[in-house]
Amino acid sequence: MKKILFFLVLTATQIIHSQVLVSPSKSVQATFRLTASGQPVYAVSYKDKAIITKSALGFELKDLPALQDNFEVVSTATRSFSENWKPVLGEVASIKNEYNELKVFLRHKSDNKLLNIVFRAFDEGIAFRYEFPKQDNLNFFVVKNELTAFNLTGDHKTFWIPGDYDSNEYVYLETPISGIDVAKVDTDNGIGAPGRLEKYRVQTPLMMKSKEGIYINIFEAAAINYPVLHLDTDVKNNSFKANLAPNAIGDKAYLQTGFVSPWRTIMVSNDARDIVASKMILNLNEPSKLEDTSWIRPMKYVGIWWEMHVNRGTWNYADKYETDVNKLIPNGKHSATTANTKHYIDFAAKNGFDGVLIEGWNTGWEEWTGNWKEEVFDFTTAYPDFDVKALESYAKSKNVKLIMHHETAGSVANYERRLDRAFTFMKDNGYDAVKTGYVGKIIPRGEWHDGQTMVNHFNYVPQRAAEYKIMVNSHESVRPTGVSRTWPNYIAAEAARGNEFNGWSVGNPPAHETILPFTRLLGGPMDYTPGIFEIKMSYYDPKKTEQVHTTLAKQLALYVTIYSPLQMAADLPENYERYADAFQFIKDVALDWDDTKVLEAEPGDYITIARKAKGKEQWFLGAITDEQARETTLKLDFLTPGKKYQAIVYEDGPAADWEKNPISYKIRKLTVTSKSKLNLKLAAGGGAAVSFFPL
Amino acid sequence: MKKILFFLVLTATQIIHSQVLVSPSKSVQATFRLTASGQPVYAVSYKDKAIITKSALGFELKDLPALQDNFEVVSTATRSFSENWKPVLGEVASIKNEYNELKVFLRHKSDNKLLNIVFRAFDEGIAFRYEFPKQDNLNFFVVKNELTAFNLTGDHKTFWIPGDYDSNEYVYLETPISGIDVAKVDTDNGIGAPGRLEKYRVQTPLMMKSKEGIYINIFEAAAINYPVLHLDTDVKNNSFKANLAPNAIGDKAYLQTGFVSPWRTIMVSNDARDIVASKMILNLNEPSKLEDTSWIRPMKYVGIWWEMHVNRGTWNYADKYETDVNKLIPNGKHSATTANTKHYIDFAAKNGFDGVLIEGWNTGWEEWTGNWKEEVFDFTTAYPDFDVKALESYAKSKNVKLIMHHETAGSVANYERRLDRAFTFMKDNGYDAVKTGYVGKIIPRGEWHDGQTMVNHFNYVPQRAAEYKIMVNSHESVRPTGVSRTWPNYIAAEAARGNEFNGWSVGNPPAHETILPFTRLLGGPMDYTPGIFEIKMSYYDPKKTEQVHTTLAKQLALYVTIYSPLQMAADLPENYERYADAFQFIKDVALDWDDTKVLEAEPGDYITIARKAKGKEQWFLGAITDEQARETTLKLDFLTPGKKYQAIVYEDGPAADWEKNPISYKIRKLTVTSKSKLNLKLAAGGGAAVSFFPL
Repeated sequence: MKKILFFLVLTATQIIHSQVLVSPSKSVQATFRLTASGQPVYAVSYKDKAIITKSALGFELKDLPALQDNFEVVSTATRSFSENWKPVLGEVASIKNEYNELKVFLRHKSDNKLLNIVFRAFDEGIAFRYEFPKQDNLNFFVVKNELTAFNLTGDHKTFWIPGDYDSNEYVYLETPISGIDVAKVDTDNGIGAPGRLEKYRVQTPLMMKSKEGIYINIFEAAAINYPVLHLDTDVKNNSFKANLAPNAIGDKAYLQTGFVSPWRTIMVSNDARDIVASKMILNLNEPSKLEDTSWIRPMKYVGIWWEMHVNRGTWNYADKYETDVNKLIPNGKHSATTANTKHYIDFAAKNGFDGVLIEGWNTGWEEWTGNWKEEVFDFTTAYPDFDVKALESYAKSKNVKLIMHHETAGSVANYERRLDRAFTFMKDNGYDAVKTGYVGKIIPRGEWHDGQTMVNHFNYVPQRAAEYKIMVNSHESVRPTGVSRTWPNYIAAEAARGNEFNGWSVGNPPAHETILPFTRLLGGPMDYTPGIFEIKMSYYDPKKTEQVHTTLAKQLALYVTIYSPLQMAADLPENYERYADAFQFIKDVALDWDDTKVLEAEPGDYITIARKAKGKEQWFLGAITDEQARETTLKLDFLTPGKKYQAIVYEDGPAADWEKNPISYKIRKLTVTSKSKLNLKLAAGGGAAVSFFPL
Repeated sequence: MKKILFFLVLTATQIIHSQVLVSPSKSVQATFRLTASGQPVYAVSYKDKAIITKSALGFELKDLPALQDNFEVVSTATRSFSENWKPVLGEVASIKNEYNELKVFLRHKSDNKLLNIVFRAFDEGIAFRYEFPKQDNLNFFVVKNELTAFNLTGDHKTFWIPGDYDSNEYVYLETPISGIDVAKVDTDNGIGAPGRLEKYRVQTPLMMKSKEGIYINIFEAAAINYPVLHLDTDVKNNSFKANLAPNAIGDKAYLQTGFVSPWRTIMVSNDARDIVASKMILNLNEPSKLEDTSWIRPMKYVGIWWEMHVNRGTWNYADKYETDVNKLIPNGKHSATTANTKHYIDFAAKNGFDGVLIEGWNTGWEEWTGNWKEEVFDFTTAYPDFDVKALESYAKSKNVKLIMHHETAGSVANYERRLDRAFTFMKDNGYDAVKTGYVGKIIPRGEWHDGQTMVNHFNYVPQRAAEYKIMVNSHESVRPTGVSRTWPNYIAAEAARGNEFNGWSVGNPPAHETILPFTRLLGGPMDYTPGIFEIKMSYYDPKKTEQVHTTLAKQLALYVTIYSPLQMAADLPENYERYADAFQFIKDVALDWDDTKVLEAEPGDYITIARKAKGKEQWFLGAITDEQARETTLKLDFLTPGKKYQAIVYEDGPAADWEKNPISYKIRKLTVTSKSKLNLKLAAGGGAAVSFFPL
């Protein structure tokens, strides 16, 4: 269902003052106008309260006059739009995309350059973007700076991470806008070498909450051929300004007219659940460019991965690098062996998993990191103890798919020039999913993960992969901006601080996973790799003090609260076998959904989500809390009325505590209907996971 | 035949003063020593005359102490080497590689870093390179500056072009060292946008002549994974210092121990012919890495190319770019049409040519230059009027090979990521040779044509091409340094100012082609594209004043004086048909040779070369002069004694003059033997070409 309700064009003479755009329910409003000097500005209000006050729009261009003021409005156009579309994989079976749109056609009076600004008002917030239409006076051009500003109305609480151009893998800090200061960030928190940091620069999505209890989120959608959006904070004036990662020579974006910028988004609600449930970011992306999507499917997987994080094995086969594979001297600790892979395949097959990821299968790991080495991996040469052909047969016989790992070490030049060969090798050996990795400084040297060149790369790989019918899960990539709508084989990304940090660093504090749905997850599925049951690393080595900062039950809940059609059961098979009753939830939980209900949400505190499995009368619920214990009573009115379900509740034991007693859990079964209520007690750093199977 | 005559290792205690290395004939000598401060220095002499006086060696490294002084000699080793090897394609059937070698093992006393310097003394000159052996204290490192210096003994005459990191396509200036000044260069001489220029920076090969008549050439060999050598001139002290193009962030080279630098070469002789005839640069390169070279063969070709240079047609199909090929509006002037290609195929077949080059066959030319556009060509989409499949069949039926053109516009990132697809497309459509092009500023932005990244690219393409059995001819590439010995499918390069400049710029002065054999050609074959018969562009447009700066006869001579196994007959078929008797020489001349004799040579003045066709009793001779008319009498003692030959002499007409009467030529036939003498009169800017066929 797609309908355009009306379309109205006003000529310049009809424009008296400002242009106002309201959302379908009229709760959200955007205002556009030109100032006396011809500067384009906008404002946003929510239920008649100012959210964004008069804020600048425009650009500085290289070697050209700035598109900053001296504009006139040529004309405006408005339209209303409503459609429902079905994601290939998603949180809901059908997504409603409904907005009113205002398009302002501007002319820069001094040089006749044309710039359009398009506003869309959704009920969850405002989005706008810049259009550089084809025009006689401008073809190729270079953006020096984007001038977009976001002037807030108060010193709101913010959940922020530093504006590192190279990494999103930070713990969120919770401060007022006035308290934003990158000097407060513990850069020794597991990030080896942070990229460029600035004292007041933060990343988007930036989640905020006003003193009046209004939730505001600044983000972007459809970052294509353009750097992703960082924000420079004016800590005195509650204000942010767009900041873009430069390329190697200091420019921000090389563009050609006919270009549309990413959408800048301001989501707003007095109910935090609206932010989490919003599909605005996806809606602002283009529909799928893939016609045949039959080969794109959700995947639950295990992998040769966590055992290296806990020092049970190594990615590298030898301790010393040799160009000639045959000269490598095995260190005896290599994890990605044929035998070990078969062990994982057996485990996956026995437990109904779709796939097995193998990291460290290919040559190059002896010198992979920290050297800024260009020819670091070739993506087609296996270590001598990894028999690609034998494993292809074995996996096939067990009906399990192998997931290939392509670590690039940031050497994108090397990866791109080998990409066709790498994908051909995958298809020749039965792989149809790849986990990519971008640990380290980028090559071409001088580029950043968040710059235009790399944004293009991260969008390019899934497009190229689609030609081979390969699904992509990127790690250490730029954070996504809903582009998985357009390239649905881009099934997941990391692009935030994942569970792995708990294995070998100060880790992720208990609040971390309650913030992700308000930030990183707005852009698309995250491969967080939950499911760590052996919470404390002292299990592996008594000297270790690192641990996962959740209870075991919360690890289960994450399979529901963190949406992804690709979910790993990250722990070792032996640990799952030891906690087989709890493992049952991971085996049961769905990956693709007909419906999603955000039952409770408060960023930094807690979140509770229920989801209905795609095409099945099964529901799964996850509830998590931060470092505070929490009790909640949930109405189960999301269940189909008149049906009886067996609810299996995986919850924290009475004395559970993420720090002191994290593995303590209990499982209870009860019969429920849509009229039932469910009481859940979450330990400090705890959670609960519930399956609902129809009786 | 390969023999190592002796190998001698001296321990440190045996080293008293300096180490002296002499060439096999003892004419050339290199001296190495450490100064009192432990700085490595070298000197070169020729027949007991100093050529290079004490000059620095060493490096500045990034974030590490400089490898500049404070060295000690750990040991030295010497050896003598002699071999004869057969090039796949070449000027001679067998190349003698004979030298004495001195290897100095240095230890940097402050930090124990190891650095070896290897000297080779050939009878044509000295070469040395740096070795960074594998060592405990150093693995990955970054070169900030190379400190190699070349201190000459006088204010020699030099033939130089500016040290532009992006282009070699300059007219040579002839000045004393003290007169080197890039401000003297006419940068409006056809180079659209020069790269980075510095007042006293010049390129290698740098050809010099001392007042005493000694010819000296500073160059390099085997530039692999390292920027090519530029020179900063100290105009007051007759001295040069190595300069390397930086990468985007200002570093010179990212290296790993186990690395050997390119060879720095100082060729020296009192006979200019020795410089031209030397195979020292090739000898310093590694033997062929290709086992099967049967598919590498010389090619004489015509092409859809000059007609665009003279405005008879366009590379672009439309005047306005459209992403969608079907929306392109033809401009009616597109040259690379199916019909026109068939016309060239017919002409090639009729005249016994091997190939036809087609430029402008593929989409993207509407916006190809000047925009720094990244996704500029895709290398697989033909314009609508170019029927790839039909032309494959047609060319095959005529036994003619088509040569594909891959212009990158400098967007190497784009080319590398498409390279496998581009080569696959070539093989799928019957192409086995490619002309690559690199007009424009490099992408990744911030890189230069002459930097490490691009040197790697230019070496990478032939390696990748070899896997597809594709021969490579690169234009606007870095100038070669003998690497075609290692990758013999890299059959030619432009990398100097070619004939094309004569079509639309101030052109190449008559001396130009007499300098190339002393400079550019030392590094490998050049695709100069000679054979322009319609010398004056007024032929095409009465308003035009541009012209080729030679006579027609000199154009013929260039097929012999400029060595290349790939030679174009660059003019239009119709012009060759109009001068069919002169064209006969181009049809006859060989491309691959059993023997070469440099009969006369003086840089900037004249050169005369005779070559014997591979496997045939046929000789071809080319003699050219600069703007001065010249008469010479040649002994034909290179011919096989006792045999009679018909000599066909293509020479300037009596009133010929490159400027006033360039097309005037005459052809005479005579019978000669090895005892004959041949008198040749070359007009100003003229030349003569001679075929010798056995009777």
